Amino acid sequence: MRTLIKNGTIITAIDEFVGDVLIEGEKIVAVGTKLDAIADEIVDAKGKYVLPGGVDQHVHYSFEFKGERVRGFETSNAAVAGGTTTVVEFVNQEQGKGMADTIFDMDKKEVSNQAMADYSYHAVVCDPVDATFEEINDLPSKGISTVKLFMAYKGMPFHSDDEALYKALKSAKEAGVTVMVHCENADVIDLLQKKMISEGKTDPYYHAVSRPERVELEATQRVINLAAMVGAPVYIVHVTAESVMESIRSAKNEGLPVYGETCVQYLMLDEDDLAKPNFEGAKYVMSPALRTKSDQEALWQAVDNGWLNAISTDHCGFDWKSQKHMGVNDFTNIPNGAPGVENRLGILWTYGVNTGKLSKQRFVDLFATTPAKNMGLDHCKGHIGVGMDADIVIYDPNGSSVISNENSLHGVDYSTFEGYKQDGKVAKVFLRGKLVVDEGAFIGEKGDGKFIPGKPFALC
Amino acid sequence: MRTLIKNGTIITAIDEFVGDVLIEGEKIVAVGTKLDAIADEIVDAKGKYVLPGGVDQHVHYSFEFKGERVRGFETSNAAVAGGTTTVVEFVNQEQGKGMADTIFDMDKKEVSNQAMADYSYHAVVCDPVDATFEEINDLPSKGISTVKLFMAYKGMPFHSDDEALYKALKSAKEAGVTVMVHCENADVIDLLQKKMISEGKTDPYYHAVSRPERVELEATQRVINLAAMVGAPVYIVHVTAESVMESIRSAKNEGLPVYGETCVQYLMLDEDDLAKPNFEGAKYVMSPALRTKSDQEALWQAVDNGWLNAISTDHCGFDWKSQKHMGVNDFTNIPNGAPGVENRLGILWTYGVNTGKLSKQRFVDLFATTPAKNMGLDHCKGHIGVGMDADIVIYDPNGSSVISNENSLHGVDYSTFEGYKQDGKVAKVFLRGKLVVDEGAFIGEKGDGKFIPGKPFALC
Amino acid sequence: MRTLIKNGTIITAIDEFVGDVLIEGEKIVAVGTKLDAIADEIVDAKGKYVLPGGVDQHVHYSFEFKGERVRGFETSNAAVAGGTTTVVEFVNQEQGKGMADTIFDMDKKEVSNQAMADYSYHAVVCDPVDATFEEINDLPSKGISTVKLFMAYKGMPFHSDDEALYKALKSAKEAGVTVMVHCENADVIDLLQKKMISEGKTDPYYHAVSRPERVELEATQRVINLAAMVGAPVYIVHVTAESVMESIRSAKNEGLPVYGETCVQYLMLDEDDLAKPNFEGAKYVMSPALRTKSDQEALWQAVDNGWLNAISTDHCGFDWKSQKHMGVNDFTNIPNGAPGVENRLGILWTYGVNTGKLSKQRFVDLFATTPAKNMGLDHCKGHIGVGMDADIVIYDPNGSSVISNENSLHGVDYSTFEGYKQDGKVAKVFLRGKLVVDEGAFIGEKGDGKFIPGKPFALC
Amino acid sequence: MRTLIKNGTIITAIDEFVGDVLIEGEKIVAVGTKLDAIADEIVDAKGKYVLPGGVDQHVHYSFEFKGERVRGFETSNAAVAGGTTTVVEFVNQEQGKGMADTIFDMDKKEVSNQAMADYSYHAVVCDPVDATFEEINDLPSKGISTVKLFMAYKGMPFHSDDEALYKALKSAKEAGVTVMVHCENADVIDLLQKKMISEGKTDPYYHAVSRPERVELEATQRVINLAAMVGAPVYIVHVTAESVMESIRSAKNEGLPVYGETCVQYLMLDEDDLAKPNFEGAKYVMSPALRTKSDQEALWQAVDNGWLNAISTDHCGFDWKSQKHMGVNDFTNIPNGAPGVENRLGILWTYGVNTGKLSKQRFVDLFATTPAKNMGLDHCKGHIGVGMDADIVIYDPNGSSVISNENSLHGVDYSTFEGYKQDGKVAKVFLRGKLVVDEGAFIGEKGDGKFIPGKPFALC
Ligand SMILES: [Zn+2]
Ligand SMILES: [Zn+2]
Ligand SMILES: [Zn+2]
Ligand SMILES: [Zn+2]
Ligand SMILES: [Zn+2]
Ligand SMILES: [Zn+2]
Ligand SMILES: [Zn+2]
Ligand SMILES: [Zn+2]
Repeated sequence: MRTLIKNGTIITAIDEFVGDVLIEGEKIVAVGTKLDAIADEIVDAKGKYVLPGGVDQHVHYSFEFKGERVRGFETSNAAVAGGTTTVVEFVNQEQGKGMADTIFDMDKKEVSNQAMADYSYHAVVCDPVDATFEEINDLPSKGISTVKLFMAYKGMPFHSDDEALYKALKSAKEAGVTVMVHCENADVIDLLQKKMISEGKTDPYYHAVSRPERVELEATQRVINLAAMVGAPVYIVHVTAESVMESIRSAKNEGLPVYGETCVQYLMLDEDDLAKPNFEGAKYVMSPALRTKSDQEALWQAVDNGWLNAISTDHCGFDWKSQKHMGVNDFTNIPNGAPGVENRLGILWTYGVNTGKLSKQRFVDLFATTPAKNMGLDHCKGHIGVGMDADIVIYDPNGSSVISNENSLHGVDYSTFEGYKQDGKVAKVFLRGKLVVDEGAFIGEKGDGKFIPGKPFALC
Repeated sequence: MRTLIKNGTIITAIDEFVGDVLIEGEKIVAVGTKLDAIADEIVDAKGKYVLPGGVDQHVHYSFEFKGERVRGFETSNAAVAGGTTTVVEFVNQEQGKGMADTIFDMDKKEVSNQAMADYSYHAVVCDPVDATFEEINDLPSKGISTVKLFMAYKGMPFHSDDEALYKALKSAKEAGVTVMVHCENADVIDLLQKKMISEGKTDPYYHAVSRPERVELEATQRVINLAAMVGAPVYIVHVTAESVMESIRSAKNEGLPVYGETCVQYLMLDEDDLAKPNFEGAKYVMSPALRTKSDQEALWQAVDNGWLNAISTDHCGFDWKSQKHMGVNDFTNIPNGAPGVENRLGILWTYGVNTGKLSKQRFVDLFATTPAKNMGLDHCKGHIGVGMDADIVIYDPNGSSVISNENSLHGVDYSTFEGYKQDGKVAKVFLRGKLVVDEGAFIGEKGDGKFIPGKPFALC
Repeated sequence: MRTLIKNGTIITAIDEFVGDVLIEGEKIVAVGTKLDAIADEIVDAKGKYVLPGGVDQHVHYSFEFKGERVRGFETSNAAVAGGTTTVVEFVNQEQGKGMADTIFDMDKKEVSNQAMADYSYHAVVCDPVDATFEEINDLPSKGISTVKLFMAYKGMPFHSDDEALYKALKSAKEAGVTVMVHCENADVIDLLQKKMISEGKTDPYYHAVSRPERVELEATQRVINLAAMVGAPVYIVHVTAESVMESIRSAKNEGLPVYGETCVQYLMLDEDDLAKPNFEGAKYVMSPALRTKSDQEALWQAVDNGWLNAISTDHCGFDWKSQKHMGVNDFTNIPNGAPGVENRLGILWTYGVNTGKLSKQRFVDLFATTPAKNMGLDHCKGHIGVGMDADIVIYDPNGSSVISNENSLHGVDYSTFEGYKQDGKVAKVFLRGKLVVDEGAFIGEKGDGKFIPGKPFALC
Repeated sequence: MRTLIKNGTIITAIDEFVGDVLIEGEKIVAVGTKLDAIADEIVDAKGKYVLPGGVDQHVHYSFEFKGERVRGFETSNAAVAGGTTTVVEFVNQEQGKGMADTIFDMDKKEVSNQAMADYSYHAVVCDPVDATFEEINDLPSKGISTVKLFMAYKGMPFHSDDEALYKALKSAKEAGVTVMVHCENADVIDLLQKKMISEGKTDPYYHAVSRPERVELEATQRVINLAAMVGAPVYIVHVTAESVMESIRSAKNEGLPVYGETCVQYLMLDEDDLAKPNFEGAKYVMSPALRTKSDQEALWQAVDNGWLNAISTDHCGFDWKSQKHMGVNDFTNIPNGAPGVENRLGILWTYGVNTGKLSKQRFVDLFATTPAKNMGLDHCKGHIGVGMDADIVIYDPNGSSVISNENSLHGVDYSTFEGYKQDGKVAKVFLRGKLVVDEGAFIGEKGDGKFIPGKPFALC
């Protein structure tokens, strides 16, 4: 069966034209005009944009923080309703267990039967024994081509020291696995947290004070040096500050394979949000912390110029009432993270494309095309092109609405972007050719999402 | 009539897939697979690459130097045979005459009836009176959206001082015209030339000594500052040196709309070529001068990373015997420039793609896609996409040959890349749907090439 | 006769101690304690600072602007009363006359018999013929070891183009002469001035608008490149802006012999002063123009760190009423420059030393020691050391006063720093051993000042 | 009793003149000419240089490495014979004992009665408990105003992690204590050492391979970030590489109080020395490791320009035969360090001053004046000035010799600079007015050296 999405304005990372997309089964088989003759069914997209389904390379559907766990893949319809058809999940290795085993046990148990978006996995190194670093060599054969390490979070199992980082980079380089790093200096944060608490500074705002920009800058420079010694590529996640971005850019200018992403919230929110009264600030407790308006501007410029190459969400669904409130008397107990996977397209379209900060091409690149490349998923994801999976968003640019948690599917009791205006809306979404959003409503099913193996050597 | 180029490996600036391109009349109407049913004729491209026709944004078919004139559009079949289907020609304004009038009088007289490639024009400011700067406002309506100024060449009509540069940038900004600049300090070159000649240093090699890297660096920094004061974009042509590239990159990092290209020869040749005995060096007399091997490496890295965004040829067809020899006793009389339009694809494929310095995507971007954008031609040129002109190169990667002037069409008595190996060959070229190269041989006709108007605001 | 200045706190560029200075004739013969036995006369300096007499490397006692001339050496007692015992005067070459002849004719006529401070000369290239550049070789033998060129002031005789700059740098390098450059892009200023006037923007404030920071930055980068090509040192006068200072610092970091000064007014005043109503702004019309408070901070940091190595005054005594008012309807006719030679010590002490921005050592270095070195005068000037000229200031740090033109000796009808507080005061000044200021009053005579030849190769 | 050193060429950090130095007791009381009348005794220095006694801010007379201990203060006559009259010793805190107690117990036991040079102390943090960081506040009152931490040496007691660094910086900032840091990434070195040994790469040369430049660069950037967060000054010891120096310079350009020294060996030797056969390379095993000739050039430029502000020796006297040979089968067991305190003046004079790399003033500044300032010793050390300690070197510039261990006093069985030529020689040395070297021979006694307390807030 061949479906023709007809007369839409098709946007890729490099072009824009009115035309048709022909889908056969799960794949795009042609892009053009005058293709009616070879189509069985026609979907009219006139006056609408036809975009590749988004790839969010940074989500958390299984993260735990001091015993609290985020909403899982049973809420992944939120991603799809928001135009993101592929998510890449970080899975923390269980102590004493292999990374792949941790991942695929979880996959079997709670992902493959629940996922409503396609998905891939990052392995998070939590047990820094030799076997773990050796296992990195085997990951690509199982479709896992990225590992992540956390430089922050002193004392937690997922914290990595320089030895672990170096060993991971070493193995990864040989295996073609990309190392992603959460860059913050763990020791300094630990000291500043203790200082804050000892001084009675327990409010959410002190989260930011306890992890200033330089803790991120230091760790970023450190891992760039480690990667340079190994000769390995490295990917810096969730860059929040101009100085950090400049470190990455300088490294690239030196010829080093150093890359980074930022996230929607770092482009839109700032430390003032953390200062909101009545524990509202807790909604914005995430790491690294929100920065300043001047950093926002620098980050918009950075994504526009390619100094950072993806905009993710770091989606992390903790409830405010039942979970964030753990830290009501001590910000260090507030689970870190905020939801956002549902709003990425709408926010970037409204505040990026419609303000002129990003061209539509650049938006598509940051939203889908380059994240797919970064993850080794570009053989099938991230682009409206021949042979690609038919993951397609029909975006109706008309009208506008207000983001409200009531209308959200993410299963969390608050929305990070509550009250923000959104221009246009996701009208339809196809996931590998299947219509899963229609007239703005999710109509897919649990299990529609499929594991997509990532290929190695994506950033070499 | 619909022609289907079938089963080729199609390369765009962002993807690569085996598929078909469907042409109707002058346009590409679809890209996909399984399109046979709607095609009238089929061209088999199996095992070959299907590339967009090249766009060379920097050629000289009408340049004069001390009374000597280059080969004109009657040799533009060389471009096409080499896979370049669109060239952009610099036309020096005649004194006392409007830029557009100069261009279109020439167009009528010697271009429209001769051209075998499509073409567009840059207006070169030579008569820096107020009327000239005012005319810049009218150029886009005539399809001219770039002007060029020369900071070098003291005493020649096409030399511009800072006043002219500033005025041009000012008008251009308002009109959406891009200012392109040849950056070299005219005063210093003039002094050094006189010094060389007075010391009896008359050989071609002293051409390089008389225009060292810093003359280019200084002028580049100067025009960046001028453009920044005006708030205008500026495009630096033929960047030859690492330091110059770094100036452009720094300006971009500051947020300024500053861009630059390099040329094939600066990636491949160096000052040693200028030192060849028996006046062979004269073949390589061009401005700016050839630099060092270390600059070559920096430039390859720059084009790969997008710090420079196009690779042109600065094609300039002077004969060695009858024309370059004017300067046999005085290098300052050697006409500046060298031919190259025919070899751009072959050289970049062989020494860029096949050495791993450029991905095939990046090659296409630098060879066709971004030059088309820079010139305001991307509405129809530079990309294998729906609605684009059917300018298509079928490149057969098999086999290799040696570049030799005997086999060249450029009408010049020497080849800049004589003896260089070339992997693969141009098998077929379509120009707006018409087959103009077949089995490697040019089969088009004079007049096949058409003027393509450039749209303004390309780099804003 | 031996005079002992006793028990003062002696400050040099590297130390500070309570002790005595022994003077014999014109020279310092010893520095120490317990020297009474070998002294004939004792001057008590207890509780006061003993400083080297200041060296102001940048003053104008003979400048003309559109026919108007500044106050001359008959007002040089102002320098001395303000603690500056040596000034270096810029003498514009007369057309068709040698630089040395211009200087020494003037010296005879109006300097040697008038000067109350010691003085040296800079030769300003105004007639860029070959003979002028050749003459540079002879200057050191006549005690002239610096030449100056103006990149600004299009159309005026003292404007220099790149050819003149290059030739001057070339000759100067061989002769060991230091080239000093006033860096502003003449063409752009000329265009912006015409634009302002044509738009009716005639007030003094538009002086700043017509010569923005980038005109200074551009010219600075240009001359750095020219000097680098020649391999000559270059000294950038009156740096006003952070960006310009950074250019100089970067050049130094590259290993180039590039140096610069700033002036008191750029540390203290800003563009708001130019906006003062009732033509008061004209008092602050000088070139380059005053900048912003943020530039002031950057410049204080720069002098503290040695990124700039002297603080001069660019003293230029035009009357407000009779001379600055020439430009009452057209700011381009306002003579450029402002007086300040009398206030350098007081202002830098009060706003530099007493605010902690400069140590006393650093102050002495910027006020006297390094300017003397820059000028080739350090064989006798700028330092309280054995064998040096006995140019000594006894500064009483107690009390404070307000700067007022009434109390000034500079012969101009306004003071640039009117109303500014000054901590302490100049109590006594010795000029080559002669007491010329006592109890704060000038008691010297015309002709006390002597020409001090500058030695070549000061900055090599 | 007053002694007059007469007619020498006196060099300070800013001047040079022929004159006399008058000593009374331990102090310099006057500098001048014609002081015979007030002197009791005259020492003729005609034709010789009169220099301040050197201050070596970085020596090890008590260092232990895997149970082996260096030669102690009983060999400090070597320093004096080499023109260094003050040394600053690093004392590793004993576990469970206060830093001051460790220092002064040692002082009593083996320093005060042995020292032949004046000395001061750095406290090395080895027991990172709270009491240690609190003790930092008390150190200045005991004359200890610097603490040192080692980022290298994983697993050894003197290794510090980021927590210790941060805490030390915090306390030090308040106390005015300067933190000095040995910057190398401990984890990476540890991994690379194990790798080398496991691969059978046991020769001294692999010492350098196991601690590449980037381990130093990384740690330097890290501690700069930590210091910036605290707002504390930081002093980077023994900078070996251009990149590291550039990091320090950039930090300074940002306005941060970051400083650094290099050592004689990093200016003179390189990794080739480590490759010498027959275990000769072990003589050059020190940390950080020797680098390249290109780094040497960058370091010469850095000290000349003040980007680094002292040249120390990191003197460390291990015997080659009995001690270095511990590591004959495993370079990680070679005690780190090399002797050099005796050769600093001779080497810097010969290869710095006499080659034109350093002016004599700059040499004095790097050798004595600024080290004294860095250490808070400038109230009495580092300068030939009134009121200073009469620590004076009379250097005879005539003749030359060859450095040979036979003629050395350092008590070690090899000389780091064996065979290097030395121009001139130390003729006489006065230590606080006492003649301790005469005709090149040491004539002082054990116990002549005195503890000199350092004042706090030296680098604030
Ligand atoms: Zn994270
Ligand atoms: Zn995350
Ligand atoms: Zn050109
Ligand atoms: Zn050209
Ligand atoms: Zn000036
Ligand atoms: Zn001036
Ligand atoms: Zn060390
Ligand atoms: Zn040491």
